[in-house]
Amino acid sequence: MKAAILSTGDELTTGRTLDTNANYIADQLLGLGYEVTAMMTVGDFPDRIEAAWKALFERADVIIGTGGLGPTADDLTTETVAAMIGRPLIEDKPTVDRMRSLFESMGRTMPENNLKQALFPEGATILENALGTAPGFRFETETPHGTRYGVVLPGVPREMKHILADSVLPWLSSLRRSDEVFRSHTFQTFGISESALDEMVAGVLDPETTRLAFRAAFPQISVRVSVAGSPDVVAARLDAAAKAMRERLGEYCYGEGNTNMETEVGRVLSERGATVAVAESCSGGLIGNRLTDVPGSSGYVLGGVIAYDNSVKTSVLGVSKATLEQHGAVSTEVAEQMAAGVRKLTGATFGIATTGIAGPGGGSEDKPVGTVCIAIASDDRTASHRYQLWGNREWVKLLTSQIALDWVRRAALGQDPTQSSVLRK
Amino acid sequence: MKAAILSTGDELTTGRTLDTNANYIADQLLGLGYEVTAMMTVGDFPDRIEAAWKALFERADVIIGTGGLGPTADDLTTETVAAMIGRPLIEDKPTVDRMRSLFESMGRTMPENNLKQALFPEGATILENALGTAPGFRFETETPHGTRYGVVLPGVPREMKHILADSVLPWLSSLRRSDEVFRSHTFQTFGISESALDEMVAGVLDPETTRLAFRAAFPQISVRVSVAGSPDVVAARLDAAAKAMRERLGEYCYGEGNTNMETEVGRVLSERGATVAVAESCSGGLIGNRLTDVPGSSGYVLGGVIAYDNSVKTSVLGVSKATLEQHGAVSTEVAEQMAAGVRKLTGATFGIATTGIAGPGGGSEDKPVGTVCIAIASDDRTASHRYQLWGNREWVKLLTSQIALDWVRRAALGQDPTQSSVLRK
Repeated sequence: MKAAILSTGDELTTGRTLDTNANYIADQLLGLGYEVTAMMTVGDFPDRIEAAWKALFERADVIIGTGGLGPTADDLTTETVAAMIGRPLIEDKPTVDRMRSLFESMGRTMPENNLKQALFPEGATILENALGTAPGFRFETETPHGTRYGVVLPGVPREMKHILADSVLPWLSSLRRSDEVFRSHTFQTFGISESALDEMVAGVLDPETTRLAFRAAFPQISVRVSVAGSPDVVAARLDAAAKAMRERLGEYCYGEGNTNMETEVGRVLSERGATVAVAESCSGGLIGNRLTDVPGSSGYVLGGVIAYDNSVKTSVLGVSKATLEQHGAVSTEVAEQMAAGVRKLTGATFGIATTGIAGPGGGSEDKPVGTVCIAIASDDRTASHRYQLWGNREWVKLLTSQIALDWVRRAALGQDPTQSSVLRK
Repeated sequence: MKAAILSTGDELTTGRTLDTNANYIADQLLGLGYEVTAMMTVGDFPDRIEAAWKALFERADVIIGTGGLGPTADDLTTETVAAMIGRPLIEDKPTVDRMRSLFESMGRTMPENNLKQALFPEGATILENALGTAPGFRFETETPHGTRYGVVLPGVPREMKHILADSVLPWLSSLRRSDEVFRSHTFQTFGISESALDEMVAGVLDPETTRLAFRAAFPQISVRVSVAGSPDVVAARLDAAAKAMRERLGEYCYGEGNTNMETEVGRVLSERGATVAVAESCSGGLIGNRLTDVPGSSGYVLGGVIAYDNSVKTSVLGVSKATLEQHGAVSTEVAEQMAAGVRKLTGATFGIATTGIAGPGGGSEDKPVGTVCIAIASDDRTASHRYQLWGNREWVKLLTSQIALDWVRRAALGQDPTQSSVLRK
């Protein structure tokens, strides 16, 4: 079964409000095995609303529309839909009574323009809204493309979600004509470009029964495996596909499912009862910030030092002035002393340090913008590496933090980060 | 002139990724005087992509598409568009060379499938992408509905925004056929909700000649004044509107134009030759990270301490154990000692400190989740305040950092942050 989503409102087409409804509905539909073939947004104009419904009738069996159900003059969805499907508007008495008593319970008289919200196309099924005045409705109509189902919901996200869950999803579930279900599994990767990832996994899976989707929202590069099938085979099919992917991805994969690098670092540290402290120069606090974005991170993050100025490197972290003068602030030698220094200062299991040139200024021939040194200190050793990163300031900081977090993760797993083929580049 | 926006990607139609590109582009188009008549989203299927372009050609003069420009097999936009407008794909040598040298600078060989990103429909104008491998392109084509302009951009938001600003908006501005020009001016605000802002500025401007657009991308809440008119009157009209807005917004406005709080903090500190150091508990490094996102911040950011664990508060920042025991880590007393401690440790003009409960755990009846204490220390005084913030962990951290940055800005301007009507809430 194919579905489409229509969002209505000038606040959306003028960029004033970000539409989160369509995304939410799409996710819910996927879970029921519906394929969303199109999502569309138009402003509060009857001709555009009607043309959008008609365009979506060409593309899907079920259309779910949100918005335009309010009491004001620019709320035009119900009358437009009724005219489009050739049905008169009928006032629904129970809805009128409910709205009047809702206003009375708030000690107010219902404004007469709210009566508009009790009008529905003849024959429509009214979808109760326990959280607001405007109910939704659904209808069935014959179109040149076949029978189509329309659902109309309020645009207020909490009301939409409530009606969707209560009245729409159960009905959609019963409407599906197939037994086929969908399942998916996601792998999070680091150290490989989206294109190299694509090449790496080419031919691993059967394109007849599985589908791969890559997503690069740097620093997250993920690949999702989706399988379809009858309920009795789909789990085994997904397991087999995931196993093949896991083997092929090897150490480029740092986590599976809805996770990210900072969450994985926290998981590994927690499992080992280890703690971490940061000594950040070029990353400026980003590593600390990402680590502490994870709920419960106070269990393994002690804190650390943002050693942006050299005076902080020497006075707080104990970096030697001679080393600074001899090798410069951006050097593996200074990074190692920073990592060891913050570990000593805080007593953390691991001290992780960054020093580099994020740009746009500060680069030299020897050490151009993007030169970043990373070091880690633990009780038995200190390791460091010099990277040449690229991109603008924001990018260098982000990449630095991602590499440093992976260093911590690997060190906590007992690996030597400098020996990782992923991190040696 | 009418415009439409097309977003492409399975990650959007499956609800996995929230589309923020379309919203951003709609906002930018409004600023140029374009009316967005439709926004559409389809998955990575050539027939759906083609049908969507055609549907949008019916609705607008200019179509801006994002997504589907990656190097992988599911990136189908360029070939689909070329086939639709009947043009062969041509490899662009300069793009190939640029991509190869980009990969070489990273010490890697370019995977051959990246070559796909150097193919463009014959006659298209290539839009350079300084932040990624895939350039965008634009084309002009004759359709049954008249001449249409198409723009194709990468789906990665930072790359999209960069190309849009550099290559697309100036061209769109020149494409408008009317003598009327549009000018706009943006005010950045903090401490007031979007709806309260809307009420506050109601009636300030003439709706016949000016248009207001609010945009809340937390922590940025901005209001943009746009005026239209012939080139000889538009500048004076904008000046008058901006002056009226400036007076009405008062101290809720912290900056004007394309700026943000951390940039304004840096501007004020630089002007006064002052420096700052952070002592972050609940914000975990976020303030340091935001401060150092600004190019040139090494001129006024010394660094600081992420004092997540209480042991770091005492051993590194010198917070008294007795104060910690008596008042708890989340207290104005501890915040003041943290601020004074980091100032002493680093020698900064201002020490700014945060301590609070970001949640979801850690709250109590006395100090629920969202309780945050902020303090600032300078050479003549220390000030602090306890806030009750709301929202989830990420939101509390972000709001904490925004308040703290505004404290630094106001202190550097010679104001007492605790006396500000904006920050006293």
